[in-house]
Amino acid sequence: MAKRKVLITGMAGRIGRVITERIGDKYELTSLDVKPADGYRSHVADISDLDAIRPAVEGQQTVVHLAADPRADAPWYSIHKNDIVGTYNVMEASRQAGVERVVFASSNHVVGYLPMKDEPYLAYFERRDADLPDPVPMITAEAHRPDGYYAVAKAFGESLGSYYWDAFGLSCIALRIGGVHDIDSPEGMGPLGRSLYLSHNDAAHLVDCAIAAPASVGFAVVYGVSNNTLRFHDIETAAELIGYHPQDNAGT
Amino acid sequence: MAKRKVLITGMAGRIGRVITERIGDKYELTSLDVKPADGYRSHVADISDLDAIRPAVEGQQTVVHLAADPRADAPWYSIHKNDIVGTYNVMEASRQAGVERVVFASSNHVVGYLPMKDEPYLAYFERRDADLPDPVPMITAEAHRPDGYYAVAKAFGESLGSYYWDAFGLSCIALRIGGVHDIDSPEGMGPLGRSLYLSHNDAAHLVDCAIAAPASVGFAVVYGVSNNTLRFHDIETAAELIGYHPQDNAGT
Repeated sequence: MAKRKVLITGMAGRIGRVITERIGDKYELTSLDVKPADGYRSHVADISDLDAIRPAVEGQQTVVHLAADPRADAPWYSIHKNDIVGTYNVMEASRQAGVERVVFASSNHVVGYLPMKDEPYLAYFERRDADLPDPVPMITAEAHRPDGYYAVAKAFGESLGSYYWDAFGLSCIALRIGGVHDIDSPEGMGPLGRSLYLSHNDAAHLVDCAIAAPASVGFAVVYGVSNNTLRFHDIETAAELIGYHPQDNAGT
Repeated sequence: MAKRKVLITGMAGRIGRVITERIGDKYELTSLDVKPADGYRSHVADISDLDAIRPAVEGQQTVVHLAADPRADAPWYSIHKNDIVGTYNVMEASRQAGVERVVFASSNHVVGYLPMKDEPYLAYFERRDADLPDPVPMITAEAHRPDGYYAVAKAFGESLGSYYWDAFGLSCIALRIGGVHDIDSPEGMGPLGRSLYLSHNDAAHLVDCAIAAPASVGFAVVYGVSNNTLRFHDIETAAELIGYHPQDNAGT
């Protein structure tokens, strides 16, 4: 059986490399990035230019959209260009090319102010004057508490994905990704870092699940963190909808 | 007591005129629009230009942000310029000028696909093969089902308002406004129109409530429709948070 044709935007970035190393043999991968990805067919273009990215999207079955200014505190001018206009361009080019699904790298930052502003997370993660209740109340995909322009742009991408599914039948699975770090270890992390931790293996598994999930999923927003003892993001929905079963745990 | 200084963006537009006629004596109103508003201090500028709108926002206590491409099916290039960049500019200029609150004209279109896609609304409003249950299940502010770029941009404005409140203490009340029509009557409307109907008097009352609501409200998203028999948008939250008590009903 022919391998599924998957375009990864931002393949040369941190998460792109983490994923590609682990699922690169399973799919026919192509890179779209501002620099080439070693060892793969690469389109070098900027996602802020719709015309420039069309050739990369043409003929693809799935697009994994990671390209972005990845800084949670990036200024508006950059977020506007890369994360808003860029995400529109990737969605629109995908629609025009007849892509079946866009896997969109959203972020835990869409609800990033919750642990800083709302109980019981505030008491545990910020004030450090109370224990987390047992069981920890889980934040679901309906929650929304963006902590920067970056987070606002990720929420925008989710909205756009919802619209494109309803209006055009372009499936979109948005992954509210936790913390993926160059050094793949929770060592030295505080409680919030251990809550958000997403190991490299679990990150690759998450994206793999989103690529492979049945067409019936249509549109979904799910969290992607490892199976952390301190987590407060719902991953049961990701298990149910796309078969995400993380193997790692950052501990306490 | 000095009247509250209120800037209305888009005052020369349909909803701007409806509101101004009814609450124009209560506040010290200034207009910001691409054309002057008769009888009021007017700044003529385009909200897509941040520098050009700063003088209008300077010294204001409240900004009612109505200016937008108001077409629910407007194309991306116009929504991007007017409803995304424009709304960022109004929020950012308000923050820089020390404005206390932005009242943001969001839209029922943020959940516009619900009656076209989801039961029980679908069966009643679109397929017309079932009655609405009694009581009608109410859609709350957590719901999100945008039906166009316009709706995606309105959801973006709500996200931005949430962020600006949490990060900068700029209060934002987002109003998911129903259907306000030039001819202020539900006559000839179908069921969905009667569900969404917002009379001119109720529209002015809604905006008045959002201007006058206590500082403790901080950030909120509420629906604004008249007290329609066929409504499926929650207005109990608006009653509780900002004292919205609509007097009109479009009937069945």
